[in-house]
This record gives sequence, C-alpha cells and structure tokens, in this order.
Amino acid sequence: MNKINVGLIGFGTIGSGVVKVLQQKAKTLEKKLGLNISLAWICDLDIESTRGLDIDRNILTSDVQKILNDQNIQIVVELIGGIHPAKEFILQALKNKKFVVTANKALLAEEGAEIFEAAKANGVDVYYEASVGGAIPIIRTLREGLVADRVETVYGIINGTSNYILSQMAQKGCDFKIALREAQKKGYAESDPSLDINGGDSAHKIAILARLSFGHEVDFKDVYVEGIENIDLCDIRYAAEMGYCIKLLAIAKKSEGSVQLRVHPTLLPKKHILANVDGVSNAILLRSDFVGEQMLHGPGAGQLPTASAVVSDIISIAQKMQGSLRQDNCLVNIDPEKLKVNLIDNIETRYYFRFSALDEPAVLSQIAAILGKNNISIYSVIQKGRRQEQSVHVVMMTHDAKEKDIAQALLEINNLPVIKRKSVAIRTERI
Amino acid sequence: MNKINVGLIGFGTIGSGVVKVLQQKAKTLEKKLGLNISLAWICDLDIESTRGLDIDRNILTSDVQKILNDQNIQIVVELIGGIHPAKEFILQALKNKKFVVTANKALLAEEGAEIFEAAKANGVDVYYEASVGGAIPIIRTLREGLVADRVETVYGIINGTSNYILSQMAQKGCDFKIALREAQKKGYAESDPSLDINGGDSAHKIAILARLSFGHEVDFKDVYVEGIENIDLCDIRYAAEMGYCIKLLAIAKKSEGSVQLRVHPTLLPKKHILANVDGVSNAILLRSDFVGEQMLHGPGAGQLPTASAVVSDIISIAQKMQGSLRQDNCLVNIDPEKLKVNLIDNIETRYYFRFSALDEPAVLSQIAAILGKNNISIYSVIQKGRRQEQSVHVVMMTHDAKEKDIAQALLEINNLPVIKRKSVAIRTERI
Repeated sequence: MNKINVGLIGFGTIGSGVVKVLQQKAKTLEKKLGLNISLAWICDLDIESTRGLDIDRNILTSDVQKILNDQNIQIVVELIGGIHPAKEFILQALKNKKFVVTANKALLAEEGAEIFEAAKANGVDVYYEASVGGAIPIIRTLREGLVADRVETVYGIINGTSNYILSQMAQKGCDFKIALREAQKKGYAESDPSLDINGGDSAHKIAILARLSFGHEVDFKDVYVEGIENIDLCDIRYAAEMGYCIKLLAIAKKSEGSVQLRVHPTLLPKKHILANVDGVSNAILLRSDFVGEQMLHGPGAGQLPTASAVVSDIISIAQKMQGSLRQDNCLVNIDPEKLKVNLIDNIETRYYFRFSALDEPAVLSQIAAILGKNNISIYSVIQKGRRQEQSVHVVMMTHDAKEKDIAQALLEINNLPVIKRKSVAIRTERI
Repeated sequence: MNKINVGLIGFGTIGSGVVKVLQQKAKTLEKKLGLNISLAWICDLDIESTRGLDIDRNILTSDVQKILNDQNIQIVVELIGGIHPAKEFILQALKNKKFVVTANKALLAEEGAEIFEAAKANGVDVYYEASVGGAIPIIRTLREGLVADRVETVYGIINGTSNYILSQMAQKGCDFKIALREAQKKGYAESDPSLDINGGDSAHKIAILARLSFGHEVDFKDVYVEGIENIDLCDIRYAAEMGYCIKLLAIAKKSEGSVQLRVHPTLLPKKHILANVDGVSNAILLRSDFVGEQMLHGPGAGQLPTASAVVSDIISIAQKMQGSLRQDNCLVNIDPEKLKVNLIDNIETRYYFRFSALDEPAVLSQIAAILGKNNISIYSVIQKGRRQEQSVHVVMMTHDAKEKDIAQALLEINNLPVIKRKSVAIRTERI
C-alpha cells in the first residue's frame, strides 16, 4: 500500500472539515479501500490557530511553494476560493504533474478552459465534486452515470442561501430583509451575501454543469443572471394563490440548435418535485435521452457535506493512482469551441406580471392593449383590492411570449399615467 | 486506442436496449472519451429475431461458451436474470479474468458473497449499477460519493410496479386489482407480478444496498418482507385523512449495534419528500454521518434507462482498462462476516390499525384494554360510520411499540366476538 500525500491549500471552514474527515476516517479508508492517505502539508495565512483540531504543527505552513514544489505531494487540494491566486496555484500544481481537487466554482466557471487544458497537457486531472451542490454527487453523475446519455436539460436549485430566504418568506410570510437577516443569523448567508442573492453563485454553478452536460467550453459571460433581491412577499402570495411557488432556478437547456443558460427567480407549479425543495437544500433535475428524468437532492453546502465531497474526490484519485501512475484516462473530452448560447432576447417564456395601478375602470384595457400590440396573450388575471396610494394590484399570467416583446411591453406599460410603480415581471417555467 | 470487446449474454428487453445505446453512441464515446467499445458477441436462445435492430448476424450465437472462452472478450454483460444459470456463467467469466456487468438483483442479493469473492480472487470486478433503481446512480454514489461517509439509513421506494399501483389507488380511488390490471396493460407489471407486489424484488435490492452501505455481507434470509397485496383502498383513504400516504418502503437502518432490514407497506407523512415519489418512479434517501440526508430520484426501470446504466458500467470498466490492465483497485472491501440483523420481533414501530367491529358501545374499551395490557399506547383514533354487516371501522395510530407486543395484541383482538374481520396493521415510519 503506497502512501498518497495530500497538500491542502486553505484552512478555513471547508479546509478544517476536510482535515476532520480525513482524520476520523483514516483507519476506515485503510481497511475498506486499502488506501493510505496522508495529509503532508496544510497551507494558510493563519498557521497559529488549530481550529479545534489535533494536528501536528510541523505540517502547517504559510509558504504555498512548500506544497507546490514538494515532489512527494501527489494531490493538491485548493480551498481558498476566488480567482486569484487560486488560479496560479492550481496551474503550478498541474504543471508539476499533481492532481488537483477544488471546490472553487468561480474559478472553474470563469477560467475553467485554461485549467482543464493545463490538466490535460500534463496528464493529470482536476476533480471538483464539491463545487456544485455540496455533497450531491452531480459531477460524478454527469461524468460517469450519464456518460452514454445526451443531456437535454439541467434545472438546478443550487444556491442554498436564496432557497432558504424564499422558503422562509413563503412559509413564515416575512419579507425579504427579515428572511435574509434570519439566514445570516443561522450562518446560511455571509455578512456580504451579494453573490448568493444576486444569482452570481448559481450562475457559476450552472456554467460548470452546462460544460459537462453539453461537452463544450462555456463562456461565463453568456449566462443570463437575475437575483432574488427584488422578490416581494406579495408576489410569493399571489403566485401561491395561482398554484405556484417562486424559486431561484438555474437553467441550462437545449433549444433549436443552441442552448439557454439562465438564472432567475422562476414560478414553478407547487406540485412539481422541485417546488418541494425547501430551506438550504439543493436539488438538480436532469433530463437526458435514454434515462429520462432524474433528480438529485441534498445539502448544498455546509462544512461536513462539502468536506465529504472533497474527500471523495481525493479517494477517487488515490484509487486511480494505485492502479496506475500513468496518464489519467477518465478525462471527458470537452470541445474547445464555445457553447452556442441563445441570447435571452430570443427566448420565449411564460410570465407572471404584477402591475400597481390606479383603481380606475380603464386600467385593464390599457394594459391589455399594450400586451396585445406586443404579441403577448394573457392566460389569466387577478385584480386585487385597493392598496396604499389608492392603487390596486393587477396580477397576470401570460402565454409564451418573446423576451424582447415582454421588455418592450413593460416599457410602455410603465409609462402609462395610471401605473404607480415599476411593474414586476417574473418568468414561469413549464417544467 | 485499444478496442474493448464486450460479450452480451441475454438479448431480451434490456439486452436489446444495451445494443441500441452502444450502437447509437459509438461515435460519441470515441470522440468524448477516446473509447472503442465493440460488441463482439450476443448470446441468446433466440438468435433469429433481430429485435428491430440492425446487427451483424455473425455475432449472434446460442453458445455461451463462445463468449466465456473468447480470449479477446474483456467484459461480459449478463442480462438473463435469475440465479441459474446466470451464476455459473458469471463465475466462469470471472475465472477467465473477465470483468462482469450485470443487472441481476436476485443473484447478487442471494449469492453475492460468492460472486464478489470470485471477482476479487481473479483480480477483476463486478459492476451492477442497473441492479437497483434503474439508471439512478445509487451504486456509484455509495461506492464513490459516500466512500468517506458512514451510512446510517437507507430508505428506498425501489419497486416501480408497487409504487405505480399504490399511486393509482390513491389518485384514482380504484382498488388493488384494477390498479394492478392497469399496470399490466401499461407494461409496468409482468403477467406474473408476484415478485414485484410481494416485496421480493425490493428485498433483493435493499440487501444489495445494505451490503454496500454497511460493508458487511448480508444474509438475504434476514430481510423481513411484506408485500402490498393486502392493501385496501379504505386504508389508503383513512391514512390520507390523517395526513399520510402508503408506500412500499425498503428500509436498512442502524439501530443499537445491529441493523434493521425490512420491506413492507409503510405510512409516510404526506409532506415528506418520499411521499411525493409517484408512479413508476424510484427514489432512495440516504442518511450518512458527514453528508446528512440526500435523495436520488428517477426512473427505476424501463429498457433505455436500465440499458444506459449498464453502458455506464461498461464505460467505467473500459476507462479503467485503458489506464491499466493490472489488478482493479476500486474494490470496496466488504467484511465477510454477515451483517448482524435485528429480528423483526425486536423492532419498535408506530402502527396504523384498522379494526372491523360490531357497532356496539363497548368495542373501543375492549380493544383499548388489550392494547394497554400489551404495552401499546394509542396516539389517535377515528371511528367510521356503519359499513357492511353492521360493522364499523375503528382506525388508530399507536405510539412506538414492540413488534411482538403488536402481534400478541392483534391475536387477542382478532379473537374478540365483536371483531368481524381480521384486523389490518400497517407500520408507520418516523422518517
């Protein structure tokens, strides 16, 4: 049994979790799999605090080169996050023929092509199960389970913070700010929660999934993104009345020779299986040609689930190494030609609208006229009693309509003198 | 790129699906993974009909030895099902150092120890993703994704036929026989549906999952099994009134130093995520120490999903082979000591009861007295109006009670002169 030496870069929450899992499971891994995985170095700026773990202080270093240049290190685990200097560390590790395990979704989404190219050129590989959906085995499922299938659609609830906030608003009837504060209190949201609630985190993750699902490199800038910052409690309530819930959905789907890549709040029928994914949970629904539909559901974040996914990657690499130290053969070839993404303007979707209008008889006919002129037909309407400023809420669901027609119609409607506030428009997914 | 030669034994529904998937995806596999997988032989008793596929008739044979003794065949795919002669074929293939892919749950559940031992002794391995949950990547998740976790509980809805029948009864209000006939008409149930509806198929599958989850060989006879044959529509309705649905649940869970292994109809709270798994779908919920709870959900059967899982196994083996033709190193070591299974009598569960009793004042007190004497306390009671033969239904939910106390109480209650029919008792899982 050869020893596999691991160097860990980043000793924060997830990093400490990885150390904990490796320490607790060392004997089991030896017994169950015949693997001797040794943590040779831990690199972090803070090498004083031991994070409540019993570790040999001699393996703590603040000099990352000790890991990157150590001939004995076969696997480098990068858990510092962010693009720089994570990218430089990983590229150097790959150049030195080390396998890399990372949970860095921003880096893989934005600079993945370069990273994976470097891995291939050096005959090693990058594992990243923890980058999407925490411990949900979505990367493994796409790389291995569905390897013979052509994936058609990926729907993901892949940001736990947003899902927790929307679930709280729906269940407790509280507004966005209160739900966000609650999420921060429970540790589900950072003190700066921007990337979670503005959809950026989900966009990183769906870019990673789209690359694997469709076998093309993805230009991250092609992902259309809207967050949940403007979701109002009353919209959650009106949606519920009509049998829908609102989720921050990440969508990657094939349509007419190109692909849609988008992240936005979305109305989903309450009976749909994704509508029942609540709290900090994540879920990913896949549709593929042979398997049909399947869904993976689980904790999308958290120290130990994420650490467990990192360790499962370390083990996969270690098993491969014990079989052969030659070139890794499980690389999935990705076409370097960028995925052809359909611009949001060309997409057709059903919409939920809420107009805040003066309580006057002609309001509905004025709105309906503008919608008709822009090729948007109305599926259903609810008009709600008087609100503040003498205004009423007019709530509508449309049939499928072109995004650019929607944008034009909203512009015209918002300019009507009877409209008191900016209109609310949320996409609905026929799932 | 070396050619990987595959020999297929069994050219029925799943076998034809595998041929179809391999044919359709040959070019993709070559491009995406650099694999050249060639179907060298197809063995079946019927080598006349081509199953609507365009195949070279020269690779069809009814002589299985052509596959088992062909030096060029590296992977044998067994899809004939049943214990014999599948077992003998697989053992011979392993002895000849061939990797084996199978969907044979009966064989693996009942004779798995011998099969896996032979694989290990010959430095090869057996892959069986398709044996449980069709294309749901549950085997891969347990073997790889959760490799660092200690699995505590496995809950599975893993028989599509039973789940379809129970879903139809609940949704359409039809009785068991009609739902079964509907399932047969749609091809979801065999003309002899015994193994599906009596729980035997789920028992095979949970035995396979328990072995992998807990790392011990399982004595299949230790699995307690009850089927859905006796589920009456009125019980589904009473359960619904109390906020529950009835599912055929397969359970493997650790409790006090041993393990519970059981398959039986089970009341589940309607809000639970497993309660929403309807129709022929399968779902498996896993609880483990680091990851917590996760659920995999998808089509549990069907030609193409199952074939896709078989092909994913073929590909995993082929990838491994291209890396190294030496001993396979991904064997999970299973302790040959049989899993210590808790006898059903020692288990404590909550129960749903339905008593058919004479509509007399003293009925409830007589029943309650017997339950009390046997240490069973009542959680809630509904008494339903008069039914046929002047009898009423008394429906109860209990608190946790010992199985043997339940059995004793039912025996005494069924002997009461006021009781008109055999009482109904269905377990409830606090999930």
